[in-house]
Amino acid sequence: TPESAERTATPGVATGLAVTGAGGDVLFIEATSMDGEPGLTLTGQLGDVMKESAHIALSYLRSHGRQLGLDPNALAGRRIHLHVPAGAVPKDGPSAGITMVTALASLASGRPVRPEFGMTGEVTLNGRVLPIGGVKQKLLAAHRAGLTEVIIPARNEPDLDDVPADVREGLTIHVLSDVADVLALALRPVEPTVGIDTGAPVEPALAGA
Amino acid sequence: TPESAERTATPGVATGLAVTGAGGDVLFIEATSMDGEPGLTLTGQLGDVMKESAHIALSYLRSHGRQLGLDPNALAGRRIHLHVPAGAVPKDGPSAGITMVTALASLASGRPVRPEFGMTGEVTLNGRVLPIGGVKQKLLAAHRAGLTEVIIPARNEPDLDDVPADVREGLTIHVLSDVADVLALALRPVEPTVGIDTGAPVEPALAGA
Amino acid sequence: TPESAERTATPGVATGLAVTGAGGDVLFIEATSMDGEPGLTLTGQLGDVMKESAHIALSYLRSHGRQLGLDPNALAGRRIHLHVPAGAVPKDGPSAGITMVTALASLASGRPVRPEFGMTGEVTLNGRVLPIGGVKQKLLAAHRAGLTEVIIPARNEPDLDDVPADVREGLTIHVLSDVADVLALALRPVEPTVGIDTGAPVEPALAGA
Amino acid sequence: TPESAERTATPGVATGLAVTGAGGDVLFIEATSMDGEPGLTLTGQLGDVMKESAHIALSYLRSHGRQLGLDPNALAGRRIHLHVPAGAVPKDGPSAGITMVTALASLASGRPVRPEFGMTGEVTLNGRVLPIGGVKQKLLAAHRAGLTEVIIPARNEPDLDDVPADVREGLTIHVLSDVADVLALALRPVEPTVGIDTGAPVEPALAGA
Amino acid sequence: TPESAERTATPGVATGLAVTGAGGDVLFIEATSMDGEPGLTLTGQLGDVMKESAHIALSYLRSHGRQLGLDPNALAGRRIHLHVPAGAVPKDGPSAGITMVTALASLASGRPVRPEFGMTGEVTLNGRVLPIGGVKQKLLAAHRAGLTEVIIPARNEPDLDDVPADVREGLTIHVLSDVADVLALALRPVEPTVGIDTGAPVEPALAGA
Amino acid sequence: TPESAERTATPGVATGLAVTGAGGDVLFIEATSMDGEPGLTLTGQLGDVMKESAHIALSYLRSHGRQLGLDPNALAGRRIHLHVPAGAVPKDGPSAGITMVTALASLASGRPVRPEFGMTGEVTLNGRVLPIGGVKQKLLAAHRAGLTEVIIPARNEPDLDDVPADVREGLTIHVLSDVADVLALALRPVEPTVGIDTGAPVEPALAGA
Ligand SMILES: [Ca+2]
Ligand SMILES: [Ca+2]
Ligand SMILES: [Ca+2]
Ligand SMILES: [Ca+2]
Ligand SMILES: [Ca+2]
Ligand SMILES: [Ca+2]
Ligand SMILES: [Ca+2]
Ligand SMILES: [Ca+2]
Ligand SMILES: [Ca+2]
Ligand SMILES: [Ca+2]
Ligand SMILES: [Ca+2]
Ligand SMILES: [Ca+2]
Repeated sequence: TPESAERTATPGVATGLAVTGAGGDVLFIEATSMDGEPGLTLTGQLGDVMKESAHIALSYLRSHGRQLGLDPNALAGRRIHLHVPAGAVPKDGPSAGITMVTALASLASGRPVRPEFGMTGEVTLNGRVLPIGGVKQKLLAAHRAGLTEVIIPARNEPDLDDVPADVREGLTIHVLSDVADVLALALRPVEPTVGIDTGAPVEPALAGA
Repeated sequence: TPESAERTATPGVATGLAVTGAGGDVLFIEATSMDGEPGLTLTGQLGDVMKESAHIALSYLRSHGRQLGLDPNALAGRRIHLHVPAGAVPKDGPSAGITMVTALASLASGRPVRPEFGMTGEVTLNGRVLPIGGVKQKLLAAHRAGLTEVIIPARNEPDLDDVPADVREGLTIHVLSDVADVLALALRPVEPTVGIDTGAPVEPALAGA
Repeated sequence: TPESAERTATPGVATGLAVTGAGGDVLFIEATSMDGEPGLTLTGQLGDVMKESAHIALSYLRSHGRQLGLDPNALAGRRIHLHVPAGAVPKDGPSAGITMVTALASLASGRPVRPEFGMTGEVTLNGRVLPIGGVKQKLLAAHRAGLTEVIIPARNEPDLDDVPADVREGLTIHVLSDVADVLALALRPVEPTVGIDTGAPVEPALAGA
Repeated sequence: TPESAERTATPGVATGLAVTGAGGDVLFIEATSMDGEPGLTLTGQLGDVMKESAHIALSYLRSHGRQLGLDPNALAGRRIHLHVPAGAVPKDGPSAGITMVTALASLASGRPVRPEFGMTGEVTLNGRVLPIGGVKQKLLAAHRAGLTEVIIPARNEPDLDDVPADVREGLTIHVLSDVADVLALALRPVEPTVGIDTGAPVEPALAGA
Repeated sequence: TPESAERTATPGVATGLAVTGAGGDVLFIEATSMDGEPGLTLTGQLGDVMKESAHIALSYLRSHGRQLGLDPNALAGRRIHLHVPAGAVPKDGPSAGITMVTALASLASGRPVRPEFGMTGEVTLNGRVLPIGGVKQKLLAAHRAGLTEVIIPARNEPDLDDVPADVREGLTIHVLSDVADVLALALRPVEPTVGIDTGAPVEPALAGA
Repeated sequence: TPESAERTATPGVATGLAVTGAGGDVLFIEATSMDGEPGLTLTGQLGDVMKESAHIALSYLRSHGRQLGLDPNALAGRRIHLHVPAGAVPKDGPSAGITMVTALASLASGRPVRPEFGMTGEVTLNGRVLPIGGVKQKLLAAHRAGLTEVIIPARNEPDLDDVPADVREGLTIHVLSDVADVLALALRPVEPTVGIDTGAPVEPALAGA
């Protein structure tokens, strides 16, 4: 989808699937890092459970990063800021867990997230993917937003029976139980691709203004 | 306008557009920095969402500053104080996001904000400009205050239909989706201009008192 | 049981027994550590009493670790994160105390917890095991989940009268009063075993993606 | 007035004008500094808005101090304590802003505040003086307390119409829009004057007790 | 009593006397220390007043330790954890003050508390023992628990009239006004005794498991 | 009085006068210091205003100590603990201000407070003594407790008309407006006196126990 493509062009952004009062919706998790007091800044009016998800996602990557092939220093000793637009909408729940892991792993590796992927699933401190609610609404929203690949928890496989056939046909649905498999699937390779912003310094936008 | 010109003469001040109980209004975001414990001091009776906007604005500049041509040390390792007068009026919401980025980028670059500009728009951690409410009241307020250039989010373009023709004629309206474009447009060049306070040390006001 | 075996394959995870609104249940305590500001991060919507249990468990191991044969540095000078899935379910009470000690001792020693063990019991700062409630429901849940060994506090021995005979026959029940005995019983030996993930670096999952 | 003279004899004390439930009143802002953890201690049962005023006042002086001829180290790297007696009376609002700037600038420069001056006005981070309420009651209170010079915000000039003629005749009223002008007017010269405590060490009061 | 003997075998544990909804009861104060951020961790669902008692107890020992013959470094520069089981029972009030001093002095000196002693009394920062309530219920509880020596505040001596004769006969009651006298009475000598755990490293419980 | 004499024998304790629900009463302010994180620990269930009084008292002494002949390091770089027994009784208000200054100055100088003195008065950051309430009840309580010298604020002198003649005859009443005068009057000389505990190390109470 155009929006997802634009949003995820930069490493550090992953596309999640959420349930709102008005059905399912797509949301973007943005992560960035900077020098400064190590720790995690969280914005986007996140509730207690969702804030805990972000801490779990970061701890998982910091303690398992080496096994995942991530630079062990990419997420340590730096200030990490994780934001979930839109800024005025309260959000809560554990189901953005794997999306947060993906956004942070993308930031740490410099590998953008594939734009055609949306995902939902609680994550544990050891990287297991636990079941969530609202599979039907979330897949409808993914389809509506033009996503073509979705990741859901293995233990949610039975919920696929409730998803309309045309939506299931329009989506490749991955049912996973280990967040390492989510990362292997959803992160692009490191090689820069034509048309993708690699985050490298370019002609400064303000230098000659 | 005289007030906006006087307020924005110093680097670090940007003119925002807000909706209050009594229609739209112009507000000023003031930013300054000093030696001391690094971090962000926020004053002006800001609500939760508006405080988060300030953190997002600062993180955006700290992690994208190099690409924007900003001195990477200007906003790191220093105490930043961001204030929104009037001090007793509670304020909230995400729509001052791009104004906060502009005030902080002005402070970091030493380039004052152009006094004829007012702006409104939520900002994300990657610098995207998200839509806000109250476009009509905000443009009426900008016009009333004598501003001649306004910046609104691209996704708010449809709201311009509701703005009276004479107001639209009196304003140059920029519809933008990337806050880097906001900065390129709203910050003055670095060359000091006659009559503009450049922040350089002058004859101390109190030395001979 | 398959789930317990999979969950406890990694050092740092222990299986607890809890009482919920709907009877007894099995829960997993996950602990991990990383470089960073020393201290304890707690997630899983833990109530005040359960958070205190985690601090007691950690202090017990830090002050008695040498007597237990644990590396005195394994739990000091590092950030410890202890999580209790599922992330959205509020949990409270002191009865996970010995499970927390076991998870942290497993993490510190690198010895996984035996997968056939479930346990419940309050712990004191000196390692005594104090009685808890819900023995009957907890043992029913352990049996239902396929566990074959359970640990309960010595002062709860009289409660075993209420447990159905077939459940008692299916379980080896250990009644203990010192958490050092819990650790001696529930932790596997250090030697890596076939099929057990030893936590050693393997071919990085993401390196060639 | 005798009380104001006695109170402001020491650098660091400025006389403010306030509105209370029983009309206007004179209050004193006391500032002092000491070695220790840098930061601002605030006492006197100050409300949120008034606490923010103190932070704004300090940030203004720390970031503009050099232009004002203040020793840049006088307010940095030290603990600042600002107190507003009487200690049990709750106080709030932004109108003590310029009095706080004056007390802190007096402390930093070692120049006492002129005892015949009372003042009221909100201050912004860039030193602008914003309008406040209660001009009539405040000037009546200043007159009653024997003050002869008062400073009010320029934008409050129209409120002077409501002040009785005899009060206006008894006061020299300064209407100002820049707090730098407040400081130039209200601080005494640095030269020690007969009868003024210069803060220098004297015969210790307790040494021979 | 068997329980008290077992609990107080380790230095750092003292036996207190409390009043609960159901009469008097015996409680144990456990203290331990470890490397780490200096400070006091308090657990056991302690209320405000009881938390303050712990801080008073620690400050008393840290500022008077040298006079008491304690190693001045034993309680400084280390993390102290003080816990009062049972962990789920809320507790409050100042009457555990002298018990807390005793537990901490036992920890600092390595001298276990005599198991036959129970005690109750508020402590001040200078070590005075202030009167408390519930003397009758507390002495009944001490007697019931098999304790043979109790310490109460001197100013509570009149309350002994209400204690049944058989209880008074079964107890040696010490009425004291200085907590230094409590310590002299209740701490065992430093010489290790047969059957008493001296805290020295022994054969590690887990090393060969 | 015997109690006051015993309580104030150690440097760091001063006798205050308070109003309670049941008339006036005598209270003791205890201060001590120790190595550790510099700062102020406050106990005794103190309310907001009374906590602020303690900070004002400490800041006054730290910034004016040199003029008072106090060792500038005695109150800096150390942990100060100030406690007001009885520990379970909530206390509030500014009237213990001068008593707190006196207790802290006694601690810093090593000079005990004269046991025959009781005092009441709010203190400001510059050491002025402000008026308080309850003079009659406080003087009755001082007389009842056997004190013979009391200090009250100068602006409370008119309240002495309400004090019964026999009480006024039994007390020497000092009306003061500067807390430096309070200290000059209430602190004993530095020379150790027979029967007064000088705080010097003595035969350790526990060494041979
Ligand atoms: Ca919540
Ligand atoms: Ca795996
Ligand atoms: Ca809010
Ligand atoms: Ca761009
Ligand atoms: Ca609770
Ligand atoms: Ca408020
Ligand atoms: Ca000016
Ligand atoms: Ca100016
Ligand atoms: Ca309380
Ligand atoms: Ca003594
Ligand atoms: Ca209060
Ligand atoms: Ca004086």
